[in-house]
Amino acid sequence: MAKMKNDAICRMDTDFAQWYTDVCRKAELMDYSSVKGFIIYRPYGYALWENIQSYLNQNFKATGHENIYMPMLIPTSLLQKEADHVEGFAPECAVVTKGGLETLEEPLVIRPTSETLFCEHYAKIINSYRDLPKKYNQWCSVVRWEKTTRPFLRGSEFLWQEGHTVHATEKEAKEETLRMLGIYKDVCKNLLAIPMVTGLKTEKEKFAGALETYTIEALMHDGKALQSGTSHYFGQGFAKAFDMKFLNKENQWEYVYQTSWGVSTRLIGALIMVHGDDNGLVLPPRVAPTQVMIIPVREKEAGVLDKALELKETLKAHGIRVEIDLSDKSPGWKFSDAEMRGIPVRLELGPKDLENNQCVLAKRNDSTKQTISLNENVAETVCQLLDEIHEEMYEKAVNHLQEHTTRVKTKEEFIDVLEHKGGFVQAPWCGETDCELQIKEETTATTRCITEEEVHSDDTCICCGKPAKHIVNFAKAY
Amino acid sequence: MAKMKNDAICRMDTDFAQWYTDVCRKAELMDYSSVKGFIIYRPYGYALWENIQSYLNQNFKATGHENIYMPMLIPTSLLQKEADHVEGFAPECAVVTKGGLETLEEPLVIRPTSETLFCEHYAKIINSYRDLPKKYNQWCSVVRWEKTTRPFLRGSEFLWQEGHTVHATEKEAKEETLRMLGIYKDVCKNLLAIPMVTGLKTEKEKFAGALETYTIEALMHDGKALQSGTSHYFGQGFAKAFDMKFLNKENQWEYVYQTSWGVSTRLIGALIMVHGDDNGLVLPPRVAPTQVMIIPVREKEAGVLDKALELKETLKAHGIRVEIDLSDKSPGWKFSDAEMRGIPVRLELGPKDLENNQCVLAKRNDSTKQTISLNENVAETVCQLLDEIHEEMYEKAVNHLQEHTTRVKTKEEFIDVLEHKGGFVQAPWCGETDCELQIKEETTATTRCITEEEVHSDDTCICCGKPAKHIVNFAKAY
Repeated sequence: MAKMKNDAICRMDTDFAQWYTDVCRKAELMDYSSVKGFIIYRPYGYALWENIQSYLNQNFKATGHENIYMPMLIPTSLLQKEADHVEGFAPECAVVTKGGLETLEEPLVIRPTSETLFCEHYAKIINSYRDLPKKYNQWCSVVRWEKTTRPFLRGSEFLWQEGHTVHATEKEAKEETLRMLGIYKDVCKNLLAIPMVTGLKTEKEKFAGALETYTIEALMHDGKALQSGTSHYFGQGFAKAFDMKFLNKENQWEYVYQTSWGVSTRLIGALIMVHGDDNGLVLPPRVAPTQVMIIPVREKEAGVLDKALELKETLKAHGIRVEIDLSDKSPGWKFSDAEMRGIPVRLELGPKDLENNQCVLAKRNDSTKQTISLNENVAETVCQLLDEIHEEMYEKAVNHLQEHTTRVKTKEEFIDVLEHKGGFVQAPWCGETDCELQIKEETTATTRCITEEEVHSDDTCICCGKPAKHIVNFAKAY
Repeated sequence: MAKMKNDAICRMDTDFAQWYTDVCRKAELMDYSSVKGFIIYRPYGYALWENIQSYLNQNFKATGHENIYMPMLIPTSLLQKEADHVEGFAPECAVVTKGGLETLEEPLVIRPTSETLFCEHYAKIINSYRDLPKKYNQWCSVVRWEKTTRPFLRGSEFLWQEGHTVHATEKEAKEETLRMLGIYKDVCKNLLAIPMVTGLKTEKEKFAGALETYTIEALMHDGKALQSGTSHYFGQGFAKAFDMKFLNKENQWEYVYQTSWGVSTRLIGALIMVHGDDNGLVLPPRVAPTQVMIIPVREKEAGVLDKALELKETLKAHGIRVEIDLSDKSPGWKFSDAEMRGIPVRLELGPKDLENNQCVLAKRNDSTKQTISLNENVAETVCQLLDEIHEEMYEKAVNHLQEHTTRVKTKEEFIDVLEHKGGFVQAPWCGETDCELQIKEETTATTRCITEEEVHSDDTCICCGKPAKHIVNFAKAY
């Protein structure tokens, strides 16, 4: 079958950044608006987010979390209550100074994140250990003024969820921090077919106000890392600043222990850059808005259209998200369009197929085709194929990650790997921020997370040569 | 069984407004934040919204609509493109003048509604009749600066959905306007058990920029009306202002025909004020976050807790949203709490019930109880009961609406009914805005919608005495 090349987009190897924005536009995931950094999430892109939301919501609810909605605006005085936090976010804020034609007495900030609002609310509603834990989550958009923006990866407005929980004990809060990290790892593996590298952020890279920040980091096709979600343990820092106290079982006042955690529409960026190819998007089946596209060939000939419509209903009845392309375009154009949009399976059906009582299933991820009999249980075959595709895509991403994870001992090795191979470079580090900064300045690579690799006595910091404290995952990152 | 009165809230007849805010707070639907007019949607209140969302989303998708997300901020110049529209909204806008520590060249407005953004986008992506219709919907929050605010009814920020569609013909767009009105009427009847009065708004009351605005109006317990949703037909007004053109089948450039429609968290206000009573919230089963609350009595006695937990699992397996109150409060407190939160069915189970192999089902809406055998199919009985409750609540609301809808012929009658009975007063009107304004000034009643009642030759405007053009639903309104 003749195939139209998707010449409309730049080749990945020619210019990866251009390829990325080409795919974003041509697959109709997003469009630009007239305000810089504020994108439009078009139906196809937003549907990806809805599928991620739905998967996470189930997991959040199963682990006892409740959804809530907090105000969009934060008084500047409230944002300033926790010192580290305001220092981290104030420079990125959008500020409302007028409301209803009048100048406001106190300027209001559009939420860049909602810790302060949750803290204020929790302080009001929590009195006793019986009120704990409180495990709330919010789906919303946040605004952080960015100078350099890229669709899904860095925007002045993005969609996310932010979980905020408070607990009676440190142990419970720390368990929560790790539980949510686990849920993030799970959604990436089982829905998005993306393996994640996880670990603690260094002091320098952690969240403004957190004691510990755990991260999930994915490796993009171009060898750069993408921070894809974080889970923070706050200890009692915010609790003290916001006076979040409870009467414990011993009838003593005690400050709560707190966490927060979030993932955003960045995950869509990860999907694109982990799985995509020169023909466009390649979507893992479970998150794909359309899992099967039926393309009837010469559908005006007897029986083709009817059979195609019948197949659609059959697949739909089995819970498969299926569409049929009945536009007046050529089959070549339709194939190319389904490819660009990354639809996992293309089902082709023409007069000759009908004669032989068969149809053709073409897989987007590896371009292979198979002919199956229409006597078979087509829906079951397709379901199985979708699962196979998920596994294949995950495995491919795991291989790419493993091939691009390199353990080094010296700075020379470090630079060499970074330049010629990319990916995660695991290197010994003394634990000092100065060394982190120096490496960043020299190589543009940053610490992505601290590994749990054992540190040997002869491991020395690749920067200063002092004894190493940790083996750290460095990478160039988005 | 002894029952604790919910003395915590004001009686409806004593002070309806106070009763309303008491219920909002005590049923934990919302809380106030530190910014006036911006409320916190607490888990129980937000869950109501999620159930409304889910019901509507199914209906929107079944009728070919796609979800999308537009930027939160609108350049002031964009808002100004359609003259009527900006005049309507500019006085209510929250304005961002600073971003990332710098003063913006052009101030940005937090969306009070997103017509202008959708128009700009549609103008970009629509070229030919093949691109039509486009039927997009957005779930988001909007900001309109309000001086007087009340939870769910009028706030400076509220949650809503806004649908925006463009079509190739006037006929199709008008059909869409009515189709969405129908969907709103349906969700109110079948999910919220609220009958709606529907019709066209007058010129004075219609949406800023619309040719026609249809409304759904509900009658509250206190006899006041609540506008609960609107569906607008725009004609080509915005299309001309934003240059939304397409090549029609005759290869001629033509402006699109447009609609928009929305419902908001106001529906939660309607739920409270239509169904609530002196003991708190009364929720229709289909929208209730918890449909059945199991309250074990003396649950430490042999078998009670086990049976209660078993019943919970049985009901859950049948798709019933069920909880069990295992707090260390007294049964009386638990009954009262379940009442305040409006949970449709309370299932009581104590040692004596267990001896007799029975349990008690208490209905929130009419306080009746029935004892059922545990040999019966309990889940089926409960499902049936929930349906019954829905029907009873709907019927009660229909009766209240009918009893409070009065046809009058003169201004004296009009004022008399308005003062002593309240509700909708259907009166002949000449069609002039001046008369509308004068009636509003004299009585505070406004036109809610134009009825489809036939106008007789002897019907004269209750204000000016000229021949009537329409019979209009007037009411005092929120």
